Amino acid sequence: MTGRKQPALSDATRGRLLFGGDYNPEQWPEEVWHEDVRLMKDAGVNSVTLGVFSWSKLEPEPGAREFGWLDTLMDLMHENGIGVVLATPTSSPPPWMGRLHPDTLPVTEDGRTEWWGGRQHFSHSSATYRRYAAAITEDLAARYGGHPALTMWHINNEYCTFDYGDEAAAAFRRWLREKYGTLDALNQAWGTAFWSQGYDCWDGILPPRLPHYMRNPGQVLDFRRFTSDMLLECYTAERDIVRRHTPHTPVTSNFMPLWVGQDAWRWAEEEDVVSVDIYPDPRDPLGAQNGALVQDMTRSQARGPWMLMEQAAGPVNWRGVNHPKPRGLNRLWSLQAVARGADAVCYFQWRQSRQGAEKFHSGMVSHAGAEGRTYQEVKQLGADLARIAPQVTGRHITANVAVLHDWNAWWAGAQDGRPSSRVEYPDVLRAWHQALWQAHLTCDFAHPEHDLTPYSVVVVPQLYALTDAAIDNLLAFARGGGTLVCGFLTGVADEDDRVRPGGMDARLRELFGIRTLHEWWPLDAGETVACEGFHGTLWSEEIEPADPDHTACYKGGELDGMPAVLRKGRAWYVSTLPEPEALRELLARIAGDAGVRPVLDGLPEQVEAVLRGEVLFVLNHGREPVTVEVPGTHQDLLTGTAVTDRVTLGRYGAAVLRP
Amino acid sequence: MTGRKQPALSDATRGRLLFGGDYNPEQWPEEVWHEDVRLMKDAGVNSVTLGVFSWSKLEPEPGAREFGWLDTLMDLMHENGIGVVLATPTSSPPPWMGRLHPDTLPVTEDGRTEWWGGRQHFSHSSATYRRYAAAITEDLAARYGGHPALTMWHINNEYCTFDYGDEAAAAFRRWLREKYGTLDALNQAWGTAFWSQGYDCWDGILPPRLPHYMRNPGQVLDFRRFTSDMLLECYTAERDIVRRHTPHTPVTSNFMPLWVGQDAWRWAEEEDVVSVDIYPDPRDPLGAQNGALVQDMTRSQARGPWMLMEQAAGPVNWRGVNHPKPRGLNRLWSLQAVARGADAVCYFQWRQSRQGAEKFHSGMVSHAGAEGRTYQEVKQLGADLARIAPQVTGRHITANVAVLHDWNAWWAGAQDGRPSSRVEYPDVLRAWHQALWQAHLTCDFAHPEHDLTPYSVVVVPQLYALTDAAIDNLLAFARGGGTLVCGFLTGVADEDDRVRPGGMDARLRELFGIRTLHEWWPLDAGETVACEGFHGTLWSEEIEPADPDHTACYKGGELDGMPAVLRKGRAWYVSTLPEPEALRELLARIAGDAGVRPVLDGLPEQVEAVLRGEVLFVLNHGREPVTVEVPGTHQDLLTGTAVTDRVTLGRYGAAVLRP
Amino acid sequence: MTGRKQPALSDATRGRLLFGGDYNPEQWPEEVWHEDVRLMKDAGVNSVTLGVFSWSKLEPEPGAREFGWLDTLMDLMHENGIGVVLATPTSSPPPWMGRLHPDTLPVTEDGRTEWWGGRQHFSHSSATYRRYAAAITEDLAARYGGHPALTMWHINNEYCTFDYGDEAAAAFRRWLREKYGTLDALNQAWGTAFWSQGYDCWDGILPPRLPHYMRNPGQVLDFRRFTSDMLLECYTAERDIVRRHTPHTPVTSNFMPLWVGQDAWRWAEEEDVVSVDIYPDPRDPLGAQNGALVQDMTRSQARGPWMLMEQAAGPVNWRGVNHPKPRGLNRLWSLQAVARGADAVCYFQWRQSRQGAEKFHSGMVSHAGAEGRTYQEVKQLGADLARIAPQVTGRHITANVAVLHDWNAWWAGAQDGRPSSRVEYPDVLRAWHQALWQAHLTCDFAHPEHDLTPYSVVVVPQLYALTDAAIDNLLAFARGGGTLVCGFLTGVADEDDRVRPGGMDARLRELFGIRTLHEWWPLDAGETVACEGFHGTLWSEEIEPADPDHTACYKGGELDGMPAVLRKGRAWYVSTLPEPEALRELLARIAGDAGVRPVLDGLPEQVEAVLRGEVLFVLNHGREPVTVEVPGTHQDLLTGTAVTDRVTLGRYGAAVLRP
Repeated sequence: MTGRKQPALSDATRGRLLFGGDYNPEQWPEEVWHEDVRLMKDAGVNSVTLGVFSWSKLEPEPGAREFGWLDTLMDLMHENGIGVVLATPTSSPPPWMGRLHPDTLPVTEDGRTEWWGGRQHFSHSSATYRRYAAAITEDLAARYGGHPALTMWHINNEYCTFDYGDEAAAAFRRWLREKYGTLDALNQAWGTAFWSQGYDCWDGILPPRLPHYMRNPGQVLDFRRFTSDMLLECYTAERDIVRRHTPHTPVTSNFMPLWVGQDAWRWAEEEDVVSVDIYPDPRDPLGAQNGALVQDMTRSQARGPWMLMEQAAGPVNWRGVNHPKPRGLNRLWSLQAVARGADAVCYFQWRQSRQGAEKFHSGMVSHAGAEGRTYQEVKQLGADLARIAPQVTGRHITANVAVLHDWNAWWAGAQDGRPSSRVEYPDVLRAWHQALWQAHLTCDFAHPEHDLTPYSVVVVPQLYALTDAAIDNLLAFARGGGTLVCGFLTGVADEDDRVRPGGMDARLRELFGIRTLHEWWPLDAGETVACEGFHGTLWSEEIEPADPDHTACYKGGELDGMPAVLRKGRAWYVSTLPEPEALRELLARIAGDAGVRPVLDGLPEQVEAVLRGEVLFVLNHGREPVTVEVPGTHQDLLTGTAVTDRVTLGRYGAAVLRP
Repeated sequence: MTGRKQPALSDATRGRLLFGGDYNPEQWPEEVWHEDVRLMKDAGVNSVTLGVFSWSKLEPEPGAREFGWLDTLMDLMHENGIGVVLATPTSSPPPWMGRLHPDTLPVTEDGRTEWWGGRQHFSHSSATYRRYAAAITEDLAARYGGHPALTMWHINNEYCTFDYGDEAAAAFRRWLREKYGTLDALNQAWGTAFWSQGYDCWDGILPPRLPHYMRNPGQVLDFRRFTSDMLLECYTAERDIVRRHTPHTPVTSNFMPLWVGQDAWRWAEEEDVVSVDIYPDPRDPLGAQNGALVQDMTRSQARGPWMLMEQAAGPVNWRGVNHPKPRGLNRLWSLQAVARGADAVCYFQWRQSRQGAEKFHSGMVSHAGAEGRTYQEVKQLGADLARIAPQVTGRHITANVAVLHDWNAWWAGAQDGRPSSRVEYPDVLRAWHQALWQAHLTCDFAHPEHDLTPYSVVVVPQLYALTDAAIDNLLAFARGGGTLVCGFLTGVADEDDRVRPGGMDARLRELFGIRTLHEWWPLDAGETVACEGFHGTLWSEEIEPADPDHTACYKGGELDGMPAVLRKGRAWYVSTLPEPEALRELLARIAGDAGVRPVLDGLPEQVEAVLRGEVLFVLNHGREPVTVEVPGTHQDLLTGTAVTDRVTLGRYGAAVLRP
Repeated sequence: MTGRKQPALSDATRGRLLFGGDYNPEQWPEEVWHEDVRLMKDAGVNSVTLGVFSWSKLEPEPGAREFGWLDTLMDLMHENGIGVVLATPTSSPPPWMGRLHPDTLPVTEDGRTEWWGGRQHFSHSSATYRRYAAAITEDLAARYGGHPALTMWHINNEYCTFDYGDEAAAAFRRWLREKYGTLDALNQAWGTAFWSQGYDCWDGILPPRLPHYMRNPGQVLDFRRFTSDMLLECYTAERDIVRRHTPHTPVTSNFMPLWVGQDAWRWAEEEDVVSVDIYPDPRDPLGAQNGALVQDMTRSQARGPWMLMEQAAGPVNWRGVNHPKPRGLNRLWSLQAVARGADAVCYFQWRQSRQGAEKFHSGMVSHAGAEGRTYQEVKQLGADLARIAPQVTGRHITANVAVLHDWNAWWAGAQDGRPSSRVEYPDVLRAWHQALWQAHLTCDFAHPEHDLTPYSVVVVPQLYALTDAAIDNLLAFARGGGTLVCGFLTGVADEDDRVRPGGMDARLRELFGIRTLHEWWPLDAGETVACEGFHGTLWSEEIEPADPDHTACYKGGELDGMPAVLRKGRAWYVSTLPEPEALRELLARIAGDAGVRPVLDGLPEQVEAVLRGEVLFVLNHGREPVTVEVPGTHQDLLTGTAVTDRVTLGRYGAAVLRP
């Protein structure tokens, strides 16, 4: 790239906060387009994403091209000062592709074809699919690469397909061959000596299709990695095409939050802009916390500002019961995203569909139209974002706490035949992050092999599998004076899902003062275990410590008097999942000991405070007004008024304070 | 038909109430046939249905015919004065058909074949199946059309097969081509502009097979219609054959009650006799109400007397737990059917099987035999029916209330991705009908495009999709002075499942005084919403009314002070599902205002009263005796005694009173 | 065999109790083998099972043979005095078999292939599979038949595969042809006259694959029998090969306890040693009872000492939550097995795997290694077993009570479309056996056609289907003065699942004094029915007795005053499932009347006492210490101390007392 820097989100924001959403005008007659533009401008919309589901419109039959309608729209947007995030349409192939090329259709693990008629019915491994996808991407990039409306490329949409079919099987074998080189290495890694699974030739290897009884865990783990890599190949192939045409235009593909199928650490490295879709349930009492987790994780993957590609202005349509957002919640959660690093607040979709599978998914303009509460609140939010943008766009967030997360550990630990199917990785991760949130401690996420020196405290909720390098990294962090807190089921296996001798890595056991890990005692549903000072949930452990002094022991039952929480210097091991309040207290105490303090002291429970750059966001997630102590004098960017020592926030209220 | 009237149920009843059931003598040695006839005559049985599952007996190999055994039985029935409803055996093809013609087997949405070994393993779209079905029907009609025992034709049995296979796909395409003419029209109707689903040729269209993610709702809706039509084609093909042979013999095919797969309004138009199978759970506290709903609906489809083709004398065998009928319940529910218009009370089956999949489904003669309680009660019922027949057969029921029901609205509204999967159309329909039942208001069912002028009150529990013609019809009814009561999720979509602007038809909103329908607030399981004077369940709505006066508002929560029940003149809109007692009170009040009164005043809760012609049925669904005020003097046709001003009914007791 | 007796377990035990487990050394480098042997010897291990999952190691490509590693291990074991139970590796074919011969893969009832990558992915009907299995068995037997370490043959492992594919279909037809001779006989037996299922040629018959609606019960029942027989053919084919090489070495194949797919009565006749795998949930409050049931059943099948082939030293890995065994439980349950007839106490597996699907299934040496509690307890147990072996090995247990059990009755009664899906055969069997256990009554199991004369009391929890011969047998037992206790749903059907006239065999009705069985009244979940003196669960019946005197009547409800428990002389019929305490009391009273007494009087609830030979096992299943009266003076073989009149047992404590 001849010395030029890689494009970034700032190339699209240009000092603004992007505001807008997916726009699917092909659903509407042209007269509606003009109404849309009028409403967009009224609402301060400055960015729309075009083309996500337009393949059959752009290529109505194989090889055809119909760009006229898109030309009109690109021009219309540009004339009205609205930037375009242009999507490659490759997430939903036209019906003709499946009809002419059934080899492009994915196959489930039990051999059932996934047909067209929905979306995302493509095999990541299909050469035919990839060829068509490249061709339409090429032509789109050639035609619109120079269009002044273009601000960003959006590749595909929510990559999420699996495939267990024959072409995927062949690709899996190629992938394995490249990884392992020899069958012997593969047989070793997968432990095929057990259950007579030794492979004598590469052609005998399949995706982990329906077995008679449990699958080989190594095969399943590698198939996870392979799937993430195949999807990534689909992405990079298209990215490289558009980058060739527009080296200065940033490229993204939107993640689904904490989705199991993509190793987003690896993916993020291939993206100019990290974007994500966030849809907490408005009824979920932990909705704000769950949103914060995704925001923190996305920011950490982006290593800076990120893009909220999709959220819902009102209800979604894919839950059992789809609740609308109460008045104010859309604004509050949008500001929360900005507080935690978003420089773009976008929606699926601009105008709610009248037809199709998502017609009951809300839009920025709902079925109720411009008079509806939804659009009215969107409009208010647009104004708010414009007010705060100059002080926040591009600004960074500093965290002293890192939470470690790794897809490989998740994949290895989430298999059938594990000690407890009640232990779900995302739940454990959420429980620990939520405790930090409730302690008002801002945190980043990090990969276990990342540089941890910027942090005072590193929290490992659960990393079942760790590479030697990751263990080295943790030990170095601890030896360097860092405070390390580990939850149970950490360091059990290596990167091949091979259990480490002793059932947990010996160096970690040494670090925490564990002499022998005799047994895991997973808990049944509804069961808790008494510990000194709190109750544990989900899990407990029969540990023989190297040292008789512990922070807290189990009380009663089979584990009476055995250590529940072990501490050795600044290294902590928590062998159960403390109830939320106890975990919050534990982490607050550990962080405090490490000199890490919340942004504001004395914050009420439902109030979130985040410092972005110099700007302090104070968010009331409660339905009752609340007064928050904020020492000193600030200007509230939302209202323009001065705030001294305290600010009162109404239900779902927010203040954005500049010193 | 050269001026002759269409045959009707009365051609079979000839002034009697038909009493009997399915008779499958091929299961039994011939000596049992004679025992059967003796017991039938003792019990007053005057009608049996032969041949429902006799295909492999009649055609043991392809093209063979074995009629001798059936000749014997037809003669035996005739000699003993028992009429025969003769079935075409086409609901269960012989094993050789699947073996020789695998193309006749249905395929599930995920590509799995449904094999022989059960029943109904035929594809409605299979040309091979249809050819064999026509041939055996032709030969049956030719042989028995002139037999004196023949009273009615029974085509197939409980049509209920789906098929997603290739031959069905081809038929679906033909059906769509006929409906839409052009692909453009289809693409418009299905909204294929969304998710890149535009079809470029007819061959690209499939049944809605397993997708990767949600299906196209228009495709699913049309596939529902197609399936109903294909089954109907199977029916009419056989009907036309027998009608050619016996133009004066009525033809029927038995419905399953409120079954999702057949548009029974359309089907009923093709039948001379409308018949149905009713199997309420004897343990269901709403068993009587559920029975009444099916009876009212069947009578409305028949526009007069109808046939109860199947019920169970005791337990069925397809529930998780199959409860027998307590003493008296079989008689009570049979009389209820007659009260609500049945001129035929029949069972599956005469003699309980000793083998096969339904051997634990009761018969009129149970495993306990003639000494068993079941047969003894059947015998008593036969005598009761004979006593009341002269005064009730052929008589009509007059209702001033109509409940609107439409399969198309159900199909459109029951799809994945809807606002709440807790909203199930049949439950909502049942809740409203049950409220009328509990208010002792007799009602018909009607299609939304039917003539509504005979009714004072029209109740629309939920018609999510309505054609323009239906909306015109409702508005005309309301303008004509009728009282219209609508439940939520009515008028949302048009016949293509295209959401109407504003989220609800504008003219209906105008009718009810709804300015803006901001959001739906579906309720979670176990959640209720407080309204003035009652609690709502399942659903609530954020409505901005055109007029500040409402009947009842929401109290508390996000909707505090917003209207729950809107009234504008005689038009009512109920935006939640009131709890049963509240709905009953609401409907009783509205009906009262419209001058519609129950058959009898002051009826106890568990007593049902229905006027059929001049005869008043009074039915005690309780287990405690009850005394009912019946002004004036009547004769109880069951006992022959006179009844003045009041009648006392024992547990499950009944009186059939003639003035 | 030229007059020589059939080999037996005693040929392997030679006066010892076998102690050891599955050993899968191919998972470990050779240096671990030597560590293993050291630990085995320390723990008193005298038997290991080799080769269970070694096929791909022994035959890494088709026709290859790699015996060297096994030679080494056989020698190593022999040198260290450890006997080898040598397994044929045929339960888990190598990947090459599926790759080269997809016809060897099983197919589910809905047409899905079960692929390799797990285990047991072989079709019992595949000629190809059987050919390969015979070849490797032949070569194993030839090579190791004369090896001094060899003590027993272990054929395959936990036979449990079903197959609905085409080769299985052909085999099913052959099996049926052999059974029935004519199609007419098959059509009669299956009752194909119902639902038009008459077969006109053998080729039309399929396994009971996915139907549109319920399957034919006769077809399902015969398919169960066929499957058990096909698996048995697989077994006997291999057994005959090894027997040819080693006529004096006993042969076994390990059962899964009370597994539905094998008629273990028939299988046991083909085995020299009956072995079983027992895995009660350590958390199950009825774990000891469930273990006792399997132990009693296995002993009854073995007609003497049997082999506990697999148990877990700690947690398993296939439950939702896998609990470890509390300290002492492994020893207690192992001693229980010996008390109830086991002469071998073995585990899956010796050393817990580090890789593969079962790496979280415990081993005798757990991940914690030799220092772990698991191995330490194993070592203690090994010493205990060595202490008691001389007094117990080969000794028999005498029971005066027999519980009848038959797979055919289970298969016939467990089908879809039965009166209540809540009635699960194993639950009913367990409830009755548990009542005997709680009454401290030792029982055998017996087949309904076995000689019952050794017993005073015969208990029939539920034999839905009985042959005429079985009914003759029961009647003869009753006529001979035996006490017969029958639970409900007994004698309903014959061996073809044809309901007997009257809904229950007439002679049984006569035996119990039942005039008419009007209806079954199955109970809903959570429902009980009041009877005089107790409550019934699950089921009740509307019976008209021949005699008005009954032991206990129903109280209230529809059955008020009707008999719940009928008694006629020594024949008892129990028409409900009494709550556990009531069933225990009933059986204790009936047994007492028949002169059958518990081993010890006044035993506390959680204490089990079993007399094996002259040795009295007293086992405390409670977590609190308990003192038990044991009249007279005994020596406790575990401690060597004398015990007079009473013995005190700690938590999970045991005494093994010799007079």
